Amino acid sequence: MNFSDQELIDGIARGDLRVVARLITLAENGVPRARAVQRAIFPRTGKAHVVGVTGAPGAGKSTLVDQLARTWRARGKKVAILAVDPTSPFSGGAILGDRIRMNHTSEDPSIYIRSMATRGSLGGLSKATLDAIQILDAAGFDLILVETVGVGQAEVDIVRTADTCLVVLVPGMGDSVQIIKAGILEIADLFVINKADREGADLLHRDLRILLSLAEAGTDRWEPLITRTIATTGEGAGEVVDGVQSHSEWIRNSARGKEKRLGILEHNIIQLLTEVTLERTLSSKRDLLKKLVADCYERKVDPYSAVEQLLAPSI
Amino acid sequence: MNFSDQELIDGIARGDLRVVARLITLAENGVPRARAVQRAIFPRTGKAHVVGVTGAPGAGKSTLVDQLARTWRARGKKVAILAVDPTSPFSGGAILGDRIRMNHTSEDPSIYIRSMATRGSLGGLSKATLDAIQILDAAGFDLILVETVGVGQAEVDIVRTADTCLVVLVPGMGDSVQIIKAGILEIADLFVINKADREGADLLHRDLRILLSLAEAGTDRWEPLITRTIATTGEGAGEVVDGVQSHSEWIRNSARGKEKRLGILEHNIIQLLTEVTLERTLSSKRDLLKKLVADCYERKVDPYSAVEQLLAPSI
Repeated sequence: MNFSDQELIDGIARGDLRVVARLITLAENGVPRARAVQRAIFPRTGKAHVVGVTGAPGAGKSTLVDQLARTWRARGKKVAILAVDPTSPFSGGAILGDRIRMNHTSEDPSIYIRSMATRGSLGGLSKATLDAIQILDAAGFDLILVETVGVGQAEVDIVRTADTCLVVLVPGMGDSVQIIKAGILEIADLFVINKADREGADLLHRDLRILLSLAEAGTDRWEPLITRTIATTGEGAGEVVDGVQSHSEWIRNSARGKEKRLGILEHNIIQLLTEVTLERTLSSKRDLLKKLVADCYERKVDPYSAVEQLLAPSI
Repeated sequence: MNFSDQELIDGIARGDLRVVARLITLAENGVPRARAVQRAIFPRTGKAHVVGVTGAPGAGKSTLVDQLARTWRARGKKVAILAVDPTSPFSGGAILGDRIRMNHTSEDPSIYIRSMATRGSLGGLSKATLDAIQILDAAGFDLILVETVGVGQAEVDIVRTADTCLVVLVPGMGDSVQIIKAGILEIADLFVINKADREGADLLHRDLRILLSLAEAGTDRWEPLITRTIATTGEGAGEVVDGVQSHSEWIRNSARGKEKRLGILEHNIIQLLTEVTLERTLSSKRDLLKKLVADCYERKVDPYSAVEQLLAPSI
């Protein structure tokens, strides 16, 4: 399908899903006119609430995300799911793509689901995710659920772009110090103990409370909630949705909440800045890079001098 | 201790551990003269073999790394361990630091151990790790073991800077598709099935073989090895060390190996380039960034235009 820029802009304003899908693809592929369209629709954004969901592989995130999406749907909200994956270039993404589709069993056509995966090795995933969020926001989605695969830095970066961060844990998967290791304690607004019927749920709950009690207290501070779910049956999904609602009110109405939103924006701009810089340097200086790599290999140039040469203005 | 630049350069050449520790700290703190010293010692680098070790939390990486270090020591090699952690700013790193020290029980003073953790939120970890590797390399270490915490993108980025990548797995922790999810299949040169006395080791071994058989075959290609260990007893450590040795010969003597080393260098230069660019833009344009964030919040400026303004040459 070929849409003109104006058709894209109008389609987004109408919430046309074909246009949404098309524009996300154009943005993913770095088509220049996507950026112009995104600028035009930017004033429409800022209404959606973005919920990041992260946690260890096998924690049941996809199932939980489905249940949350259904709960919001039942409450009359327009919901989109972005499943973000640092796909292996090795597997070409096919195995994974199928897996995600299988995991998201929801047949509800009113829930928009999109998988996003890294194409190249050089990241770009944060930018693609930010673009998709912006497009969905402008298209009138009330809730955008961003689901990531693991708990590494890339996931933390992506989840940080969310207004509310859910961290999904399961009883009996490593001790709680691992939570700190992954660096996710400070980004969690809600902890979800999934598979809460398993042994160890009480212990995990208690450990989390202790870890959270170590955090600095503040009058205006958000105190992370701990909820329990059994995603396969939907148990507890309502409570999580209520928790997100409370956090959404906090982030929109308190001074510290505004601070957090400014922090998210700053983070997003810095992510974009990094990717744009990299893209420009590498597209215009491919040959120089290749030469410098060979020189470093021969120990003729050190990596810092190589970087200086790459950053020097072109003649 | 205050060393002059020349004392630092000479100390590294002698392999003086106090100087090594000092220079790594200077580099971590971004002290400008560290860079000058690093340039001076760069020609001494390129001899060390860098082994990256990654895997899920709880896979027993620290114990395995200790065993490997001891095995190499026993074979007369000079060994350093870098334990790299995306530490939580929340915990201030203290809990984690202790944990690492506890995990590395090795009392052998001839094995140099250093923990590296993110200080700020803006990464810099890859640069710090690359700096430390370079310094240790110049100081005459034969083997540098870089151990990371998780299997996220940051870990993959760090492990990619290694000549040989070990991926540590344990039986019964999630199915094998998760391996692909984490995007680590294509970076592994050796798979180590640790805790191999556990149930499920045979199944994991078989699954890995099947996954590897899906990879493109090539005459000159490195075929990832699969080894089994019980790190707590040291069983299998010798086999892993032999495997790394084979890989080291492959990477140094084959055309594809050279290609891989060039790829590592390119990756390193790009990492440095990103961090240097970010650092410069943000140090000189803090106020502009703050203003643009506020403008984006009010929807007066869109993030892409903000990035353009940040990238515009200063007047």
